[in-house]
Amino acid sequence: MTHYFSSDFKLGILGGGQLGKMMLYDTRKFDIQTFVMDPNPEAPSRVSCNYFEVGSLMDYDTVMAFGKKVDLLTFEIESVNVKALEDLEALGKKVYPSAATLQKIQNKATQKSFYDHNQIPTAQFQIFQNLTALKKGVSEGNINFPFVWKSATGGYDGKGVSVIKSKEAIHNLPDVECIAEDLVDFKTEIAVIVSRSVSGEIKSYPVVEMEFHPEANQVEYVLCPARISEDVASKARELARKVSSKFEHVGLLAIEMFVTKNDDILVNEVAPRPHNSGHFSIEGSFTNQFEQHLRAILDLPLGSTESKTNAVMVNLVGDDNYTGDVFYEGIEEIMALPGVTPHIYGKRETRPFRKMGHVNIIHSDISEARAIAATVKSKIKVISKKS
Amino acid sequence: MTHYFSSDFKLGILGGGQLGKMMLYDTRKFDIQTFVMDPNPEAPSRVSCNYFEVGSLMDYDTVMAFGKKVDLLTFEIESVNVKALEDLEALGKKVYPSAATLQKIQNKATQKSFYDHNQIPTAQFQIFQNLTALKKGVSEGNINFPFVWKSATGGYDGKGVSVIKSKEAIHNLPDVECIAEDLVDFKTEIAVIVSRSVSGEIKSYPVVEMEFHPEANQVEYVLCPARISEDVASKARELARKVSSKFEHVGLLAIEMFVTKNDDILVNEVAPRPHNSGHFSIEGSFTNQFEQHLRAILDLPLGSTESKTNAVMVNLVGDDNYTGDVFYEGIEEIMALPGVTPHIYGKRETRPFRKMGHVNIIHSDISEARAIAATVKSKIKVISKKS
Repeated sequence: MTHYFSSDFKLGILGGGQLGKMMLYDTRKFDIQTFVMDPNPEAPSRVSCNYFEVGSLMDYDTVMAFGKKVDLLTFEIESVNVKALEDLEALGKKVYPSAATLQKIQNKATQKSFYDHNQIPTAQFQIFQNLTALKKGVSEGNINFPFVWKSATGGYDGKGVSVIKSKEAIHNLPDVECIAEDLVDFKTEIAVIVSRSVSGEIKSYPVVEMEFHPEANQVEYVLCPARISEDVASKARELARKVSSKFEHVGLLAIEMFVTKNDDILVNEVAPRPHNSGHFSIEGSFTNQFEQHLRAILDLPLGSTESKTNAVMVNLVGDDNYTGDVFYEGIEEIMALPGVTPHIYGKRETRPFRKMGHVNIIHSDISEARAIAATVKSKIKVISKKS
Repeated sequence: MTHYFSSDFKLGILGGGQLGKMMLYDTRKFDIQTFVMDPNPEAPSRVSCNYFEVGSLMDYDTVMAFGKKVDLLTFEIESVNVKALEDLEALGKKVYPSAATLQKIQNKATQKSFYDHNQIPTAQFQIFQNLTALKKGVSEGNINFPFVWKSATGGYDGKGVSVIKSKEAIHNLPDVECIAEDLVDFKTEIAVIVSRSVSGEIKSYPVVEMEFHPEANQVEYVLCPARISEDVASKARELARKVSSKFEHVGLLAIEMFVTKNDDILVNEVAPRPHNSGHFSIEGSFTNQFEQHLRAILDLPLGSTESKTNAVMVNLVGDDNYTGDVFYEGIEEIMALPGVTPHIYGKRETRPFRKMGHVNIIHSDISEARAIAATVKSKIKVISKKS
């Protein structure tokens, strides 16, 4: 058995954003040596790992060279060079989640086809190789309006996704591989994070509910547990298990789902890593999602996914009128509210809708927690510094 | 108001041991810039701060130079040069806890006299300037056996403390300023951590119970809450408040107390910093002690000190038969137990009874938590590496 604690073992993490940064807290707690690579020399993770290097995550040679330095490689972002991961595996390097899992997820067209092949319910969709093909589909009457356009690659935080209501709107879309998806008339968006270790031990977190910001198409609140019936929750957990078992992932798999007006559940998309919908777990759960990801990929026993108490997470995104050195207006005020913990990602510059941090609110009563979350949202503003 | 979050504000921490390391996790969460100094280039904090430097904490010039680089100075160990802290304050530098508070605590003879002056109940004691004076006191029949000998300075983790049962045993003691204290016939050792902010906001953690290792004179288990009557707990909290108000400290004050056979409460000693008796709070409390220390010294609102769930902490100390590169035997096994989180301090070398980490066990039922703690203790061994 490999020994990770205060040893020479080296964990490599591709990507140095906030997800990596929060994962690093738990590597420190276990005193696991960490190597992080990110293209941005100011990446949030830079000061929390043992070794940081600047490099492109999409460049084959760069990822190969980085991977060879470590004993086990993981990632905190899907946009990494999969071929390099494959070749590192072929050289006997441990890569979790595997190249094969990431390959099925990285491209949304591939991901959607995977659901179809595996009888996993998802919104109806068509795949188009480029904008010309999409336009042809529209002009031939094969697509109904409105529909959801999704770029096959490169989308995150609501980017690369648009609701297209008319023929004219198509002309503003970029010329990339894409999918056109039926607009689901859902009543709730939910998510389940499933953890699966190298040995195949599986534990799922409770179903959470995601409330979206109406304009920015970004999650504004995450509630744990979701305010849904036990029946629907149990169907969602079951479906999440099925998705997890089909992907045969190692590590976390965050499964975002729609609950339709008829209480049907459709898989929207998945992410093979710690996820925004799991941030509540830092203060809310017996084992937070970052520690759980580490336990899973290191093949340690998984921790309990039960909640210590109910929780709501509020995303802190840049106010749309400010760009520049960040200033968290009102943060002292929200810290006076009971059970409120801000998590600041460490990005110096704010931009409209940029994810700058999140705030967890824990409370035994979920309605109380949601009410405090609304207060938090109204009091804190991510603007630029007045100094 | 000063802005701490993703700003140019610089927090300095004297000492880079495990307490500093754990405090740094919370500075990362808030993205507060940190400067740490420790004499040991391999100190646990070295990889968790923004800037680390090697330097003597007792050297006046070194502490002055370090203090001038930062906006606010705190410490994670009492053995620092108090004169330098005083002079930094005179230059207008913020130092929390203050030099005046530390001065009253650093020397145990001064600390005990302070209790006497302030009508704070404590075990009877006499102060001796050196070994000769102590011997004289004994030969003149002013001290009864057995008594507790404590070095006035430099003691920690049970070092610098001995129970002296006979005249002969005195000859093995070092020639230092010391106190001779009545041996208290206590039934329980307890502690309360009081947090007090710059503005004077005060919040106390629940009373915890400390179970000692019979040989090493080190705390083996800490239970939150203590298994004592509500009456005794309330008396203890009241006394802790009084001690806190007399010291007028800023930051945390950990107050260790004895509960005598008659349910009287005596103050044993205090520490003006995060404390071993508060480690349970990392998983157990709404606000952990390290975050609370930061909130207090930065004059942010204090967080809730309530427990999310009951907790027991187990200290991980080096097995007495091993010295060398550390190896945590059985750690995978204990991680399979419910609600168990190991915290590894990041010291490469184990030595007999060296504090290497701790394990938190959380459970809604304190007896269950204590039972799991015993299992943890029996399964994990801190030995040296076989590789």
